[in-house]
Amino acid sequence: MKIGDIHTEKIKITAEKIQQFGTFSEDFNPIHFDDKAAQAHGFPRRIAHGMASAAFFSKIIAQTFPGPGSVYLGQTLKFSAPVFIDETLTFKLEVIAQKEGKPIFTLKTEAYGEDQTLKISGEAVIKAAV
Amino acid sequence: MKIGDIHTEKIKITAEKIQQFGTFSEDFNPIHFDDKAAQAHGFPRRIAHGMASAAFFSKIIAQTFPGPGSVYLGQTLKFSAPVFIDETLTFKLEVIAQKEGKPIFTLKTEAYGEDQTLKISGEAVIKAAV
Repeated sequence: MKIGDIHTEKIKITAEKIQQFGTFSEDFNPIHFDDKAAQAHGFPRRIAHGMASAAFFSKIIAQTFPGPGSVYLGQTLKFSAPVFIDETLTFKLEVIAQKEGKPIFTLKTEAYGEDQTLKISGEAVIKAAV
Repeated sequence: MKIGDIHTEKIKITAEKIQQFGTFSEDFNPIHFDDKAAQAHGFPRRIAHGMASAAFFSKIIAQTFPGPGSVYLGQTLKFSAPVFIDETLTFKLEVIAQKEGKPIFTLKTEAYGEDQTLKISGEAVIKAAV
């Protein structure tokens, strides 16, 4: 892992995933499960929990970039646009800094919608396996 | 909701929740499911996914503090100590700032372990329902 390395991965935020996240977190806010409830709050249809989409940064870091043995030290998240059910997000992770002499990296973390809207942005700090 | 308001809530991070989070996120890193794998990475026993615990800040904001109709604009997270399976975390949310004239609040968000260790800290930015 070095500054400038980029990993992108597409993940579909399915209705099944939103059901699973609701069960896990006990967050069954109707804006995530019912189009009419979402419309009452100004959304065109039901939307994913922000943290449900953001959790995939964690999954990508743990499994792929940099992968097993890495330790997740921190994450910032800005939720700038809603993610809709069955939308395929493109997750983009880019190494932007390294702590001098240590395997500790800052990654720019972004998730884009199908129309290229930036939906979630922020930075992760991770310690890579040595 | 006003500056100084505090909400605390205890949530147990059970083995069942970690299984559910694994299924949802497709993150079955063995350090979360197998004590021996966790020990190989220097932990005394298996640990929860950091984002699995952090997701409960989202749940508390959506359901209780301030509750339905609120919009989650951002979250920062620092994972400073591992969360163990079946540990009961105390989530503490405190309103520390408000955007002048707007229902947009910054909350200090912390999760403490059973021994009062600070495990996760950061800030949330939310827009409360008006």
